[in-house]
Amino acid sequence: MELFFLGTGSGLPSKRRNVTSIALQMLQERGSIWIFDCGEATQHQILKTSIRPRRIEKIFITHLHGDHIYGLPGLLSSRSFQGGETALKLYGPRGLKNFVETSLSVSDTHLPYQLEIIEVEPGVIFEDFQFTVTCQLLDHGIQSYGYQIIEKDLPGELLVDKLKQNGIEPGPIYQQIKQQKTITLENGKIIHGEDYTGPAKPGRVTTILGDTRYKPDLCSFVEGSDVLVHEATFCKEDEALAYPYHHSTAEQAATLAQQSKVKHLILTHFSSRYQEEGEGKLLNEAQTIFQNTTLARDFLQVDIPRKG
Amino acid sequence: MELFFLGTGSGLPSKRRNVTSIALQMLQERGSIWIFDCGEATQHQILKTSIRPRRIEKIFITHLHGDHIYGLPGLLSSRSFQGGETALKLYGPRGLKNFVETSLSVSDTHLPYQLEIIEVEPGVIFEDFQFTVTCQLLDHGIQSYGYQIIEKDLPGELLVDKLKQNGIEPGPIYQQIKQQKTITLENGKIIHGEDYTGPAKPGRVTTILGDTRYKPDLCSFVEGSDVLVHEATFCKEDEALAYPYHHSTAEQAATLAQQSKVKHLILTHFSSRYQEEGEGKLLNEAQTIFQNTTLARDFLQVDIPRKG
Repeated sequence: MELFFLGTGSGLPSKRRNVTSIALQMLQERGSIWIFDCGEATQHQILKTSIRPRRIEKIFITHLHGDHIYGLPGLLSSRSFQGGETALKLYGPRGLKNFVETSLSVSDTHLPYQLEIIEVEPGVIFEDFQFTVTCQLLDHGIQSYGYQIIEKDLPGELLVDKLKQNGIEPGPIYQQIKQQKTITLENGKIIHGEDYTGPAKPGRVTTILGDTRYKPDLCSFVEGSDVLVHEATFCKEDEALAYPYHHSTAEQAATLAQQSKVKHLILTHFSSRYQEEGEGKLLNEAQTIFQNTTLARDFLQVDIPRKG
Repeated sequence: MELFFLGTGSGLPSKRRNVTSIALQMLQERGSIWIFDCGEATQHQILKTSIRPRRIEKIFITHLHGDHIYGLPGLLSSRSFQGGETALKLYGPRGLKNFVETSLSVSDTHLPYQLEIIEVEPGVIFEDFQFTVTCQLLDHGIQSYGYQIIEKDLPGELLVDKLKQNGIEPGPIYQQIKQQKTITLENGKIIHGEDYTGPAKPGRVTTILGDTRYKPDLCSFVEGSDVLVHEATFCKEDEALAYPYHHSTAEQAATLAQQSKVKHLILTHFSSRYQEEGEGKLLNEAQTIFQNTTLARDFLQVDIPRKG
């Protein structure tokens, strides 16, 4: 699992940063990629990477500001010319369906794959055997969401030596034991999978917030995250702009990371007023409060390591 | 007056060519720029040029396929962050208003300048003291237009020596004479402007066609053009694709240029299947029929020279 930042600027594109988009690559885990936000020219950024649009399984939109959605119609259309035939699910705030359906119908675009658009409410929005995704309202003037991607725990390793000591030989039964099932052996003996497997491997928790003001009560949502992606539009010097423009400073993002005890904070969505020097400031201001902070840049890849 | 090609590919962006957009720069003539089509990431292409979005006065859309319009909402929004305060007029087929208004309203975008959207019908769509713009239906499956920008003739030079010989001294009266007015002098003598000015300088005619099949009856629309911009999606070898996909070959475009006796043909909108070698073919096939042909590439600038 790794985050791949496709656009890390705010408002409008600059030469150094495109508008927002983040890919969560899960090629090993499920052979697919999830996209979070899709600013204009996200498909152009993807052209410069190894990402195959046909691998995109889900797109989550945090909010409907143009710098987060204007790349959607193009990416959805182009995916069909790039071998995309599998269904795609799109999640986001109310209004998303109207934008996407109007764009596709006005442009006479007929996708050859199934597109389902789900306008979300806070809570669990997706769950399967591998992941749960929940979302939470932020504070951004218009409806803006944070998404949390919770990987389910993986079963522990099979204790093969112990199985053999107890006369249980390899075969399809090992798979059932690994799945923690209770099994009656041919000799009538009942065994419990949990007695023959090591400790479960805890799943990873990734939290990606859309644009937001500093919102201390997000702590309970963010807590337990291995990675928190938080916007940092402004530095401390411009803190007076953060509240009226519904954004955060780097220091505020770090405060939330520190209070909610996440493992790793990644800042993104920087105002184009900050060039390299200003960005150094953003990082310093955050690290004063939360040491394990990374500043995203376009095409940065960050591995989300498994625990233990 | 010069054409500035911002995107010259078809369908979807490639590393070499962005999707369609052309700027007609008229900075000397009227201090403004007109844009023809606005595929996704046109604003990103503009970032790499000296074009100032606040100078954009009009945008003409040939047709509503995504590769010609998906950059509109972003360009319109960003213009307001780049000092754009003057009114902007947008022309294009039915449906354009729905697309733009939905995109702006869903994304909560409030432009600080006046935006007027005019859904055009064939004929004259704009006229002022300097230019007339007409449009004509093409053949592309969906409504697709060609636009013709006709510069009005400029008045000839003042014949200053002749004026002085006749005792008419420099002053505000010279301006009236240049404007070909009939004036009664203080001594009661009546003079006619046209007797004291040289021959008018003919205006330039620029024709920019949207996507279209080869359409021989466009001759009468295209005739008299100093520059004709025509799509050339396919080469001769792939001619069988042109008709079903509602596009033209380079040879077909050249045939229209030759039949309608334009001065200069510029080909654009190439299928991404053609790399450098294939593009050489496109040019050769066109030049066999019409010698003065240029192949557009992204960021190509072509001067439209004044006649005589």
